[in-house]
Amino acid sequence: MEDSRDLLASKRVLFDLPEGETYLVGHSLGPPPRSALTGVANTAQSEWKDGLVGSWNSAGWIDLPGRVGARLAALVGVASEEVIVCDSVSLNIYKLASALLEGPGRARRLIVEESEFPTDQYMIERLAMLSGAEFLRAANGQGRAALASGGGVLVKSLVDFRTGAIEDVPAYETAADQNNGAMIWDLSHATGVLNLQLADWGARYAAGCTYKYLNGGPGAPAFVYVRGDCIEALDTPLPGWLGHAAPFAFDVSYTPAPGVQRFVSGTPGILSMSALSGALDVFDGLDMSAVEAKAQKLGDMCLHRFAALGLASHSPGIGAPRGGHVSFIHPSGYPISRALSERGHKSDFRTPDIIRFGLSPLFLRYVDVWRTLDDLADILATDAWKAPRFNVREKVT
Amino acid sequence: MEDSRDLLASKRVLFDLPEGETYLVGHSLGPPPRSALTGVANTAQSEWKDGLVGSWNSAGWIDLPGRVGARLAALVGVASEEVIVCDSVSLNIYKLASALLEGPGRARRLIVEESEFPTDQYMIERLAMLSGAEFLRAANGQGRAALASGGGVLVKSLVDFRTGAIEDVPAYETAADQNNGAMIWDLSHATGVLNLQLADWGARYAAGCTYKYLNGGPGAPAFVYVRGDCIEALDTPLPGWLGHAAPFAFDVSYTPAPGVQRFVSGTPGILSMSALSGALDVFDGLDMSAVEAKAQKLGDMCLHRFAALGLASHSPGIGAPRGGHVSFIHPSGYPISRALSERGHKSDFRTPDIIRFGLSPLFLRYVDVWRTLDDLADILATDAWKAPRFNVREKVT
Repeated sequence: MEDSRDLLASKRVLFDLPEGETYLVGHSLGPPPRSALTGVANTAQSEWKDGLVGSWNSAGWIDLPGRVGARLAALVGVASEEVIVCDSVSLNIYKLASALLEGPGRARRLIVEESEFPTDQYMIERLAMLSGAEFLRAANGQGRAALASGGGVLVKSLVDFRTGAIEDVPAYETAADQNNGAMIWDLSHATGVLNLQLADWGARYAAGCTYKYLNGGPGAPAFVYVRGDCIEALDTPLPGWLGHAAPFAFDVSYTPAPGVQRFVSGTPGILSMSALSGALDVFDGLDMSAVEAKAQKLGDMCLHRFAALGLASHSPGIGAPRGGHVSFIHPSGYPISRALSERGHKSDFRTPDIIRFGLSPLFLRYVDVWRTLDDLADILATDAWKAPRFNVREKVT
Repeated sequence: MEDSRDLLASKRVLFDLPEGETYLVGHSLGPPPRSALTGVANTAQSEWKDGLVGSWNSAGWIDLPGRVGARLAALVGVASEEVIVCDSVSLNIYKLASALLEGPGRARRLIVEESEFPTDQYMIERLAMLSGAEFLRAANGQGRAALASGGGVLVKSLVDFRTGAIEDVPAYETAADQNNGAMIWDLSHATGVLNLQLADWGARYAAGCTYKYLNGGPGAPAFVYVRGDCIEALDTPLPGWLGHAAPFAFDVSYTPAPGVQRFVSGTPGILSMSALSGALDVFDGLDMSAVEAKAQKLGDMCLHRFAALGLASHSPGIGAPRGGHVSFIHPSGYPISRALSERGHKSDFRTPDIIRFGLSPLFLRYVDVWRTLDDLADILATDAWKAPRFNVREKVT
C-alpha cells in the first residue's frame, strides 16, 4: 500500500481536517494547519491585546513581510532576501508589470495569453490603458513567440489553472532575453506543491498566492519575488509607507527601501499574515521534491481511473509533469460534483464542464483519493448524479 | 466628576485593555474590543477549519467587504451601499485618484498639500508619473484655491495627522465644483471619533483606515466611499476578480460590478476583515455626536493643562473643532514620551518634536487622562525626562 511507504504521511496530523470528508479543494483554499490557527490566535490574543502598538517592534510586525518572505523563498528555490509578502496576487502582478514596463529600451507592451487566469488579464489590460502601453492578448501558447519576436512583458501562470499543465521556465526566460523582454510568473497554482527552483531556472520576476497549497488561510497575503540583481532598477507604482527606505521619517518624498521590501505598499494585514506564518511551520525542513513526487503519483492514479471510466481530461497525461491538480471534462460536471460532495468528496467545479481534483500531498492519503475515485465510478455507473437535487445551483460555485 | 455623567462610560468594559496603562495611542492602533477577538477566533476556528472553501458561501465571506462596508457607512453618514471594505488606504486613494483623473473634461492634474500625510503624497506623485498627469504639491492650505482655480483632483485629510485640525468639507466640495474638479477625503484620523455626515456635507469620494479609532486590528483593511450618483462613471485602475460583475464566470474581459463593489481588487484577507467586523459591534447603536463631544472635552482638558505648563501646541484651541488627538511641541519630545511611558502613559512621538495624545472616547475615562496630565506636569517640573535612559532610541518610534 502506497500510504505505508509515504514519506509525507506524518504531515497529515499537523492539519485540522474535517471529519468524514476528503478535501480535494486545497488548490482553492487549503485547510488550516494547527500551527496557523495557533499563529493567528497568538497574534490576536497576545501581540495585539497585550503588546498593542508596541508590537510593531516587540513582536516584529514591522519585519513580518520580510520574515515570512524568507520562508517562502526557501520553497521556491531563491535567496531569502528576494521574496516579500504583501497585498494580493493581482496587485503584485500589477506592481511588477508596471515597474518592468519602464525598463530602458524595452518595448512598451504587455502580453497575456487568452487562456491566462482572468484576473491577471484584467490587471494587465487596464495597466496598458493607464500607461499608454500596447496590450497584446495572444492566442494560447503564443505568448512566448510574441515575447521573443517583439519584446515587452509577458505575464504567465507557471501551472495552468484549468489543466495543471506546467510551462518550461528556462525557455521563456531565454525568449525574454531576446528583444530585452521580461517574464512575470504567476506561481499561484504552483507554490507549495512543486519543487520550484526559480534561481536555477533563471526566473527573474514572480508573484503568487499563499492560500492554496500553502494553506495560509482565506485571503492570505500574496508574495513577490525579484532576483537580487534585478531589483534596484525597479520602481513600484504603488509606493506606500512600509516600502519606504525610512518609514518613520515621514518624508514628503518617496525613497524606495532597499531590495524587494519596496513592493510593500500600505499597512499589511497582520492577523492574516500571522496565520500564513504559522501555516508555513508545516513546510519546515520539507523536501519539496517528495511533495512534487507524491502529487504526481496521486495525479497519475486519477488519470488511470479517469481513462478507465472513459472520462476526457485536458491535464498532462500519465507520467507527464504537471501541477497539483488534475481535471476531467463532463457535460454534466456540475451535478456530478454535487453528487460527489454528498458522499463527502469535496471537489471543484469550473464552468462550463470541468471538475478539478486538487491533490494536496501533505494531508491527502492515497486511500482517500482512491475512495473518491471509487465513488466517482459508482456515481457514473448508477447515474446517481441525475437526481434533480444535484442540479440546484448554489449562489457561488 | 465627568466620568459619572459620561454617556459612553459603559463602553469601556467592551475592550480588552492592558492592566495599569493609559493607552493614548488609539489613533495609531486601537486596542481590541472583545468582540473583535471573538470575531477572528470564530472565523479561524469555525469558518475556516470547519467550513473550509464552502465558507465563501455559507459564512458569507464573499459579501463581507460589502456587509462591513454597510456598517461603516452608518458611521460616516452615508447610505449603506456606498461603502466597501478593501485593501489599504494608500491603494484606495490610488484607485479613486486614478479613476477620477479620467473624468470627462477634467483637468488632468493631481494635487496634494505639502503637509499631507506622506503616503498619500507618494501615491499621488507616482500616479501622476504613470498616467502623465500634472502633479502639484501645493503649499499648506493652498490646495483648495488650486482646485477652485484650475480643477483636477485634490487629496486631503479631513483631520490633520499632526495637529488634529479639521477641514471644512462643504467649502472644499464647492471648490471642486468650480472647474469640474474632485475632492478625495482621507478619513483615517476621523472615522470612529467624529460625527461624520458626509452625505449632508456633500462629500463624494473618500477612503480611510479602520485600525485607529475603529479598533479593527493591526493592518485591518481600509474602506472606500463613493456617493451613489457618482460611481457608475468610475473605472477602477486595479480590476480584480471580486470587483467583477460575475466573479465566477471567469470571463476574459473585465466588467465592473455594480456600485462601489468594483473597487475590491484581489481576494480580501478574511481573517483581518473578520476582526474588523467584530470590532464594529462596539459602535452598534452609538450616537456619534456623543463620541465627538467627549473627544472634544478630553482635548480641551489637555489644552488647558498644556497651557498651564507653558507647552506650545499646534492643535486647534480650546472650544475649536478638532479630531480625536491633540499634540504639544517640545524640543525634548522623545525623552518626555519615554518618561511618560515608564509611568504607564502610552503616547505617540512624531519627529522632530511632537507628542500626540489620542483621546479615544470609548475606552478612556476623564480620570485616566487627568492622571496622565498630572504625571506630565511632574515629569516636566522635576526634569525627570532628563535621565539618560529616556534618550535611547528604539528601532521604530
